[in-house]
Amino acid sequence: MATQPLINAGRLWNRLMALAEIGATPAGGVNRQALSDGEIAAWRRVIGWGLDAGLTPSTDAAGNLFLTLAGRDRAAPPLLLGSHLDSQPTGGKFDGAAGVMAALEATVSLAEQGDRPARDLIVVAWMNEEGSRFAPGMMGSEAFAGERDMAAIRVARDADGISVGEALDRLHAAFPDLPHRSLGFAVDAYLELHIEQGPLLEAAVRTIGVVTGIQGKKTFQVVVEGAEGHAGTLAQQERRDALAAFARIATALHEEIGSIDPDIKFTIGRLSVQPNAPSVVPSRIIFSIDLRHPDNSVLDAAGVRITALCGEHAPPCSVAVTPLVDAPSNAFDPRLRELIAQAAREQEFPATDILSAAGHDARHLAKVCPSAMVFIPCRDGASHVEHEWAEPDHVAAGASVLAQVLRELAFALTPFAGKTRGN
Amino acid sequence: MATQPLINAGRLWNRLMALAEIGATPAGGVNRQALSDGEIAAWRRVIGWGLDAGLTPSTDAAGNLFLTLAGRDRAAPPLLLGSHLDSQPTGGKFDGAAGVMAALEATVSLAEQGDRPARDLIVVAWMNEEGSRFAPGMMGSEAFAGERDMAAIRVARDADGISVGEALDRLHAAFPDLPHRSLGFAVDAYLELHIEQGPLLEAAVRTIGVVTGIQGKKTFQVVVEGAEGHAGTLAQQERRDALAAFARIATALHEEIGSIDPDIKFTIGRLSVQPNAPSVVPSRIIFSIDLRHPDNSVLDAAGVRITALCGEHAPPCSVAVTPLVDAPSNAFDPRLRELIAQAAREQEFPATDILSAAGHDARHLAKVCPSAMVFIPCRDGASHVEHEWAEPDHVAAGASVLAQVLRELAFALTPFAGKTRGN
Repeated sequence: MATQPLINAGRLWNRLMALAEIGATPAGGVNRQALSDGEIAAWRRVIGWGLDAGLTPSTDAAGNLFLTLAGRDRAAPPLLLGSHLDSQPTGGKFDGAAGVMAALEATVSLAEQGDRPARDLIVVAWMNEEGSRFAPGMMGSEAFAGERDMAAIRVARDADGISVGEALDRLHAAFPDLPHRSLGFAVDAYLELHIEQGPLLEAAVRTIGVVTGIQGKKTFQVVVEGAEGHAGTLAQQERRDALAAFARIATALHEEIGSIDPDIKFTIGRLSVQPNAPSVVPSRIIFSIDLRHPDNSVLDAAGVRITALCGEHAPPCSVAVTPLVDAPSNAFDPRLRELIAQAAREQEFPATDILSAAGHDARHLAKVCPSAMVFIPCRDGASHVEHEWAEPDHVAAGASVLAQVLRELAFALTPFAGKTRGN
Repeated sequence: MATQPLINAGRLWNRLMALAEIGATPAGGVNRQALSDGEIAAWRRVIGWGLDAGLTPSTDAAGNLFLTLAGRDRAAPPLLLGSHLDSQPTGGKFDGAAGVMAALEATVSLAEQGDRPARDLIVVAWMNEEGSRFAPGMMGSEAFAGERDMAAIRVARDADGISVGEALDRLHAAFPDLPHRSLGFAVDAYLELHIEQGPLLEAAVRTIGVVTGIQGKKTFQVVVEGAEGHAGTLAQQERRDALAAFARIATALHEEIGSIDPDIKFTIGRLSVQPNAPSVVPSRIIFSIDLRHPDNSVLDAAGVRITALCGEHAPPCSVAVTPLVDAPSNAFDPRLRELIAQAAREQEFPATDILSAAGHDARHLAKVCPSAMVFIPCRDGASHVEHEWAEPDHVAAGASVLAQVLRELAFALTPFAGKTRGN
């Protein structure tokens, strides 16, 4: 166990709670959607805390926020650690925010110790992880990793018709003095702490989850087209009722796809009806599908069946299924996982390997540098809900494990990624 | 056939088209919802046309608009004729507006003839017939007929949280000089022209529909309550997914209720999802049901099955079914129907008896005075759609039949309703 604390647990908790005031909902949750006024306010607060500790803020074309602690070799690829500050519309205090604040706390505590790290340490808050305002999510980390083009990202629009490009320009205009880094740069290693968003750590009474990888995910947008008509006059057999077709499709999907095996996760989370009036037969339904599974072959087969079932149950309406996200499952860097497990052992926190059921920005960083994640439990496994909760002790434990791994990497004379390549 | 025209068909058509400019949609339809700025603008135009012909405008606590042509006996119960000026969000140029403009044209033409009628003639535009902004519809005529209390009407809210009371006060504030009549007054007889909103007249090549009555209608609001959760982590078997429950309910309802017999009309037209985010299991679905049938016993039995099917298919979610409208089918006044049929015969317009599949304000007037309706065809039976269309000749024919019946009642020495009671 470390002889002296690696972080200031009280400060971390207080800052996390202070951050949760921005976008706070009456039911105790957080509504701080990507590129919103709330996220701009959160940036101001986080930048302020970074400046207090001598960290230098910057951004990039994708609206990611960076806070840099300068190392001895400014030219060496930096260590990157963080998560995201945006939330679901009825989200909680911890999803994303805990990871950014733990990364900031680990870095600030290290800076306060006075030793200059061998290379830059950069705390990051990725743009639009959630994808609730602008779909699909993880825009910032995907752009950083070179997987999605900024031109394509900028044209996505929210429900009010505002584009990502407009919202991004507005964010940047709110911080006119913030330096812009080029989009995507060489990184030595990436670390991310997150609440589990599932019940496994709590059930196993483990404080630290050493994340082995992330289950695969596919998302789709489906448009069902029928024909409008008067609810009181158009004969039932002459209708092309888009909502009736949707109900058949959704029932078939939930029955077949939802019961493939105990590991499948199938969700229709968003839906819109046109014209959405009580006495008009609906002409168009647009809905989202979120599909996840740890086994890529199961995921691919389910994706094929989704398209087939939509086609089978739509008539007399027509249907168009558009894939949005196709992210296969991945495995995190084994040596980073071992460093996390070792830190948990030394600090005497009960730990276990765990597969991430939810997607995270680390999925995209893993394609450009060695990456890993630390999970902490959340009450009842509940996340994306306003009563989402993590115990202060668990937040502190996770941040302390993160801080230990960070120190081992920060003061190593050889770059971590370089060692990987050398081995 | 009348020796000289009873109406000015060109003026009627031009005014109907001018009215359609208010709230015009790019696709050629009309979006002029109840108590909106569009409806206020429509009032201004219609009031102006009434004033030009010597009609006196007034309103009441329910936001109904009246235009009165004074008769010889101001104390005698007036003849009332009209329809509504509000539309569906993607409605057409004729639903409601054709009835108000035909009533205005018949009254203005009569006034121009110079003979003063025996009793007042009042053109009316009822408040919120459609029910698309504030549910349920027909608020103005129900309040007028004493069937619904203004206090209950005023608390209904639109999707933006604006109450009927607030919107009504805003409407009245826009017309500070308009006199207020007391809500609900004795009426001698009520006449309403409307497009059929169905395909029967067109298919039978009839210009005039003598409406025998209105099919019965029930509406419900259904709330399905589940539990929110993370789409990527919450196990399928532990979910209480409100959208999955809704899909099962809607499929069962469309299958069973939608196939009771060829006369049934079953529609789920409006639906909202909470929190409506792609990666959150939906916690709550609220949807509307619109059910219609000419036979009250079939309607009642279907209503019972709707509640039962919701209960059967909701678990593990809970469900609450709230009846909103329960309007049995009704028959219009036989003597007024004969006057309409006779006018059509004399003017040599092909006519037929027809049951109204859609609901109309006349349903509520029929409870307080002898009432009847004149239908005209609409292309392909399409209504509540932006391409809704009625031929100029058919609009003119309907208005001319309406004008002839109006003249027979307006100059009769004995009140029409009085005769009914006397017989």
